[in-house]
Amino acid sequence: MPAIDPVALTAALVKCPSVTPVEGGALVLLQELLEGAGFDCTRVDRNGTPNLFARWGGKGHARSFGFNGHTDVVPIGDEADWQHAPFGAEIDGDFMYGRGTTDMKSGVAAFAAAAVDFVTQTPPEGAVILTITGDEEGDATDGTTALLDWMQAEGEAMSVCLVGEPTCPDHMGQMMKIGRRGSLTAWFEVEGKQGHSAYPHRACNPLPALARLMDRLASHELDRGTEHFDASTLAIVTMDTGNPATNVIPAKTSACVNIRFNDAHSGASLSEWLRDESAKVDAAFGTKTNLKIKISGESFLTPPGPLSELIGKAVEAETGVAPELSTTGGTSDARFVKNHCPVVEFGLVGKTMHAVDERVEVEQIHQLKAIYTRILADYFA
Amino acid sequence: MPAIDPVALTAALVKCPSVTPVEGGALVLLQELLEGAGFDCTRVDRNGTPNLFARWGGKGHARSFGFNGHTDVVPIGDEADWQHAPFGAEIDGDFMYGRGTTDMKSGVAAFAAAAVDFVTQTPPEGAVILTITGDEEGDATDGTTALLDWMQAEGEAMSVCLVGEPTCPDHMGQMMKIGRRGSLTAWFEVEGKQGHSAYPHRACNPLPALARLMDRLASHELDRGTEHFDASTLAIVTMDTGNPATNVIPAKTSACVNIRFNDAHSGASLSEWLRDESAKVDAAFGTKTNLKIKISGESFLTPPGPLSELIGKAVEAETGVAPELSTTGGTSDARFVKNHCPVVEFGLVGKTMHAVDERVEVEQIHQLKAIYTRILADYFA
Repeated sequence: MPAIDPVALTAALVKCPSVTPVEGGALVLLQELLEGAGFDCTRVDRNGTPNLFARWGGKGHARSFGFNGHTDVVPIGDEADWQHAPFGAEIDGDFMYGRGTTDMKSGVAAFAAAAVDFVTQTPPEGAVILTITGDEEGDATDGTTALLDWMQAEGEAMSVCLVGEPTCPDHMGQMMKIGRRGSLTAWFEVEGKQGHSAYPHRACNPLPALARLMDRLASHELDRGTEHFDASTLAIVTMDTGNPATNVIPAKTSACVNIRFNDAHSGASLSEWLRDESAKVDAAFGTKTNLKIKISGESFLTPPGPLSELIGKAVEAETGVAPELSTTGGTSDARFVKNHCPVVEFGLVGKTMHAVDERVEVEQIHQLKAIYTRILADYFA
Repeated sequence: MPAIDPVALTAALVKCPSVTPVEGGALVLLQELLEGAGFDCTRVDRNGTPNLFARWGGKGHARSFGFNGHTDVVPIGDEADWQHAPFGAEIDGDFMYGRGTTDMKSGVAAFAAAAVDFVTQTPPEGAVILTITGDEEGDATDGTTALLDWMQAEGEAMSVCLVGEPTCPDHMGQMMKIGRRGSLTAWFEVEGKQGHSAYPHRACNPLPALARLMDRLASHELDRGTEHFDASTLAIVTMDTGNPATNVIPAKTSACVNIRFNDAHSGASLSEWLRDESAKVDAAFGTKTNLKIKISGESFLTPPGPLSELIGKAVEAETGVAPELSTTGGTSDARFVKNHCPVVEFGLVGKTMHAVDERVEVEQIHQLKAIYTRILADYFA
């Protein structure tokens, strides 16, 4: 079997218009490739979300290296804004253009190509597992979670897992992610009593209560960072009332706050803090605050150790750059995988992800395949 | 000439559909009545706003008693909500129903009837002047102001003026107004720098700045009231951002504040305070606050003295109630008249003004005419 060209594979995947939750042919294409190389493949679709599980080597092996990624992409927005066809995978100069070229069809292509070449050329003593979902960019409720649920039920397991998301801010090899901050969003609705602006004592204005509450939340220092994490942050993202009448005190007002938190907190501890602060303000102003909280993910960490060392060594060998161990950024499916096994994220430069004319430096796809191949070789050495 | 029935005159005026700025026949009807009683009448329309000036007695007389009122009314809203025809002037039980029955066609009818009867039955040594506008409920830019401008140009003058607006909260005779608080509305737009919620330090979030500013303004005690005024009040009436994305820090947010202020402040002193507070917050948060201020009226006072004593005595003689001297409530055209001569407001119970099924107790119209007649008699005695 000839070596797989990861650039051609990326292009083939980009041409599949797999905007969440559409499969678009991407998983079908990968399954064909992987089955041809001796992988056991299973489509683990749930509630219409397409997911692919692929294993080379024996089930339940003590040494099984896992890759995780996604083939779904975010919408293209207004096609007229693109200089290159969004699903064309055109190569222009040093770059390939198209939705998903960085996030993350190049990553999936690189680890699929590395895995296929590795198991066919130097069959390891162990297993290589690929978990690829069609819903990372959406709600992610039936994506990687569905794969992990199915694996647990079937007795399938990864010993460690590498998520192939783009992780480098500016140049190749710069950064790997060993954890992520958690994310919590809270919606506040403060209820008072309507009245006339000229007689505020006869009304109960919810706006001063909301202003006080938001001031207290925004000026509170959550922490100053922990060993592996930046400081937690809180951002008020909106405050809205919609009262056009300057002589009317409105009955209600609302706000929304987003918190990115490190391992000094949990979704539960922050929820309690938000409820306490709301209650204090309600007691002072006579208002009633309704609070709705969504915890998108808890913070998590795979502490520096064998997995991060393995990846760091391979990256440095291929690029000459020792990657920083970071926990910055938004959420990824690593937040689900961390409940299954140690997980680290490493991929190429993510600058243009979700942007118009998303593009990847072609050379980086080759480098990424080489890095993933070296990781496999070192892991099974 | 037989005595004028103020109830029939109120009904005739209510039947004129004079929703601001429509004349609706109301001023025409009054002019006919007044000219028939020997008043010199002039329509002082400006920019399409109808206004009526009427004087009995010589121009420029040293003793001239003035009445001020308006015949325009606010819209009826949804007619289906009314139990009685809005322009029907139906009498049902003790009440007459219809838009303007309290605010303030009954007041205009009462002072017109009182003035006509008084000058025909006991012609005084002096002048009686009526200034009636068709725009008190609207912007009021070409209403009483136009009448006063014209009077100044023509050498016309009132020595004192009684505004016939409803002033009694619950029962007849309860309250007269010797002044009003001022009103100021301020719109704040706070500008920062857009960014990602996960990286607030890279953005400049205008929302915490607005929350701090609003908290400072709302929790500041402007004063504790002055000799003749209640405490000044500040009401935040709206805060708006309109950002639906929980992962985005918006570039801008806004708020609006309404201040009702007594004679411890002026529109200028409050504007300066608002600018200072905005500047302090901008300095602390690195934001830029744009401030737009509208001063609807300064506070004013006709200190207790001959005019309020005259009115108080007449009210007590007719109703048995000594009226309270108050400065509460919203704005009225007295805010313009106070630049011309001492001004006091006295009228009937205003409970249903601007409401569906607005109504007046028929007996109060008779009482009001009797009070106004006694005031004229006492003034010229």
